[in-house]
Amino acid sequence: MSAAIDDILVKLRQFRDERDWAQFHNAKDLALALSIEAAELNEHFLWKQPTEANPDRVQEELADVLLYAFQLADHYGWDIPQLMLQKMARNAEKYPVNKAKGTATKHDEL
Amino acid sequence: MSAAIDDILVKLRQFRDERDWAQFHNAKDLALALSIEAAELNEHFLWKQPTEANPDRVQEELADVLLYAFQLADHYGWDIPQLMLQKMARNAEKYPVNKAKGTATKHDEL
Amino acid sequence: MSAAIDDILVKLRQFRDERDWAQFHNAKDLALALSIEAAELNEHFLWKQPTEANPDRVQEELADVLLYAFQLADHYGWDIPQLMLQKMARNAEKYPVNKAKGTATKHDEL
Amino acid sequence: MSAAIDDILVKLRQFRDERDWAQFHNAKDLALALSIEAAELNEHFLWKQPTEANPDRVQEELADVLLYAFQLADHYGWDIPQLMLQKMARNAEKYPVNKAKGTATKHDEL
Repeated sequence: MSAAIDDILVKLRQFRDERDWAQFHNAKDLALALSIEAAELNEHFLWKQPTEANPDRVQEELADVLLYAFQLADHYGWDIPQLMLQKMARNAEKYPVNKAKGTATKHDEL
Repeated sequence: MSAAIDDILVKLRQFRDERDWAQFHNAKDLALALSIEAAELNEHFLWKQPTEANPDRVQEELADVLLYAFQLADHYGWDIPQLMLQKMARNAEKYPVNKAKGTATKHDEL
Repeated sequence: MSAAIDDILVKLRQFRDERDWAQFHNAKDLALALSIEAAELNEHFLWKQPTEANPDRVQEELADVLLYAFQLADHYGWDIPQLMLQKMARNAEKYPVNKAKGTATKHDEL
Repeated sequence: MSAAIDDILVKLRQFRDERDWAQFHNAKDLALALSIEAAELNEHFLWKQPTEANPDRVQEELADVLLYAFQLADHYGWDIPQLMLQKMARNAEKYPVNKAKGTATKHDEL
């Protein structure tokens, strides 16, 4: 993988094991935790224009989303850059440039 | 940052610009897109035990979560490993080992 | 509609107008608020077995979900029992008893 | 409760039992299902202005949110109008008119 990502994964495993939290970290609850952090991220934009959110708070909640996403990938033993690159290739097929250019229409309605 | 992460960000910007999608990518909608992908991830665990989810489908939805998380960080110009490491340090303060060990209690109730 | 539902809608409009909050209550932010409350509801089940959640806290967050759901319906001027009954009829078509009995499989995979 | 709400609950229980779905309907998965429907509701607003969402699609997803919310309340045996009215009284305390008027600030920052 990458040195930076490996370093984060090593620290996340250590953080978890020092607290004896592996017992709670099944895939279903990790995914649920991720979606709860995603909602906390969205809360900073609620009733606001996009630029009115407090960047420091956005950054913290985005970090929590990323930390759970990395832990879920690590739970399954996946290579993070690889799974992202594979999905980007798939998304490029679902959203071909000639159809998707300039429109936010979902792929199944393109 | 890291070579792997930089490579993904370069490809994400290219993907977006080829489709002329920067016009839609304000921070509020990027965060909303992330949370919608998080829900699609959770859907694979719905009505199931954690081990019953289809790993291929989980991987795809997790990838979409990560892709939007990277794009949101990139929108603000943030260094992804750095924001993750900073939040881990903050989480270590919120969940000190001696209080958090072996319990899933939330920090404000520890 | 129903007396109980009408009574709640009248009180919700009064609550909103006393606080001059109609300016924030566009449909997009009402839907976003609803999903944030849904995540707070789910947080009471995180890392837990279904029966371990605190019912008082579950009830409060479920109430907030319902309050936003009613406000969103009211924003569009919809009759709440009617839209629920219509969707139940549609769901009955998507999940015919002979195919759906005893399985949690999603309709598009039945 | 109310006749309209009672009628919906009777039909929801019948729908569930005809399909033998009570086995899946624990509180944790009902809450998860609700949040997934909430995300599908939000998807109709993604990359759009609030008024650009298709009302028919919004109505369907909002109905699914309400159907799961009613089922979760029914799972616990709660009176739906009562729990909503109780929470409105609590919200009125958290957001007193003199502090909350004209501002979308969260109660803990008022």
